[in-house]
Amino acid sequence: MKILRHPSEVFPPIAFARREGASVGLVPTMGALHAGHYALVRQSASQCDKTVATIFVNPTQFAAGEDLARYPRTLEEDLEGLAAAGADFVFVPKDSDLYPSGFSTFVEPPSVSLPLEGAFRPGHYRGVATIVLKLFNLIPATSAFFGRKDYQQLLTIQKMVDDLNVPIRIEACDTVREADGLAMSSRNRYLSPEDRQRAVGIYRSLQRTLGEFNSGVRNVSDLEAVLMRSLHDCNIDQVDYAKVVDAETLEDRTKLEAPAIALVAARIGKTRLIDNWLLGTNGA
Amino acid sequence: MKILRHPSEVFPPIAFARREGASVGLVPTMGALHAGHYALVRQSASQCDKTVATIFVNPTQFAAGEDLARYPRTLEEDLEGLAAAGADFVFVPKDSDLYPSGFSTFVEPPSVSLPLEGAFRPGHYRGVATIVLKLFNLIPATSAFFGRKDYQQLLTIQKMVDDLNVPIRIEACDTVREADGLAMSSRNRYLSPEDRQRAVGIYRSLQRTLGEFNSGVRNVSDLEAVLMRSLHDCNIDQVDYAKVVDAETLEDRTKLEAPAIALVAARIGKTRLIDNWLLGTNGA
Repeated sequence: MKILRHPSEVFPPIAFARREGASVGLVPTMGALHAGHYALVRQSASQCDKTVATIFVNPTQFAAGEDLARYPRTLEEDLEGLAAAGADFVFVPKDSDLYPSGFSTFVEPPSVSLPLEGAFRPGHYRGVATIVLKLFNLIPATSAFFGRKDYQQLLTIQKMVDDLNVPIRIEACDTVREADGLAMSSRNRYLSPEDRQRAVGIYRSLQRTLGEFNSGVRNVSDLEAVLMRSLHDCNIDQVDYAKVVDAETLEDRTKLEAPAIALVAARIGKTRLIDNWLLGTNGA
Repeated sequence: MKILRHPSEVFPPIAFARREGASVGLVPTMGALHAGHYALVRQSASQCDKTVATIFVNPTQFAAGEDLARYPRTLEEDLEGLAAAGADFVFVPKDSDLYPSGFSTFVEPPSVSLPLEGAFRPGHYRGVATIVLKLFNLIPATSAFFGRKDYQQLLTIQKMVDDLNVPIRIEACDTVREADGLAMSSRNRYLSPEDRQRAVGIYRSLQRTLGEFNSGVRNVSDLEAVLMRSLHDCNIDQVDYAKVVDAETLEDRTKLEAPAIALVAARIGKTRLIDNWLLGTNGA
């Protein structure tokens, strides 16, 4: 696995591989890698001739007061894991190389980015869309792999790619979970043992909501009431949102007809976690 | 010359040419072509193996109340002229193919887009940056050619390309002028014979400002006073701006040290024209 550190180093080998006819998969990450990230890399390696991972804690996607400074950095472990998962290249740029002095062009993300995380994390998806587009330009891949755990991010990136005619295919990968169901997240390592036990309540509440859906409930306020009550029963009281919305647009519905998704963002201690479950298709 | 009408038609032949090692030049236009556009096409054809022109009157770059509906459309003449100038492909998309229902991702253009035109035409450069990035993605060219007449547009696009790491080289081409000095513009055809005569006053006023600069004047308010007085002497009274600013950043200066540029936007009758002249380097 080759480690590339400067933007000027990364385009040529990928463009060369593309000219030779190779397919190239891209897996953008912020490091602090876990089994979910490695599943993305393995999926890319199985589908593409070459796989490029990136590790960059993107400052522009952290809203004021968020955990940018304390975001976990575990570079040595990450590099070992990426090599084992089958990455051919890893791009590890510096902040100042991607955001030099005077940087001032951003992507204004699509409307699907506005509710939910967009409402609770002002500027988050503007930062995500901007860095992802920059990486797509620096690394001319054929496909890019994103996890369904960050479901609104996935929709935002897919819509940006469609709107801006970016010549790349977005591949969605299922959420990887701990044995008890907690969605893998780099932020899980912030959790105290006690909070870790409590955190699984998000998963359990999504499952209870799925159970209601599967038993025929289609009224959104009933489903959201089950979700919220279950979070409360699991001692999760700092809930940013617990919503059931249209799975394609994230728009509010009264009664479910098309595929829907239940999404939760909650604080467990000082750690903000998100998770989701699709209703009406195979959830992950 | 091959005419391509749908976005899905345009990427494959250009990507094929690139894989074969060809250089590809892109000349984005809004049609109503004149000698300035054809100079861009000829420059591309002389530098690149293949040249792609685009004709698209981009609705998102017209501010409310501007001349979108009456913007001149002269497709048959444009196609003849492009073929004669050496274009290999011309892309003529429909509005609904580039802006389908639900389109909602935009480029938030760099800070160099904020003063001057940015202040007088709200949203103009957001529309310009968005369509240009879309065209760069649809048409994977090696170079793109833009005229210095739209000087702030040129800086905006160059800075967007730098900030977003777009893998394309921006080539600036000199302004082409009528025999009397009036900068070529698609909007010149709006001018009545009388207004046409008056319009050359913009060029003459820029020349008078250059004369002052060449005689050693470096105080910006003195230069701007000469520019404004000259416009007034030429019966051009509806001036949006008549400014001398830093040529790289478009920022205000008190006294000129680095290269500067004089820029004018004025209304002649109902027609809004812009022009500029570099001070301290070879003007065009």
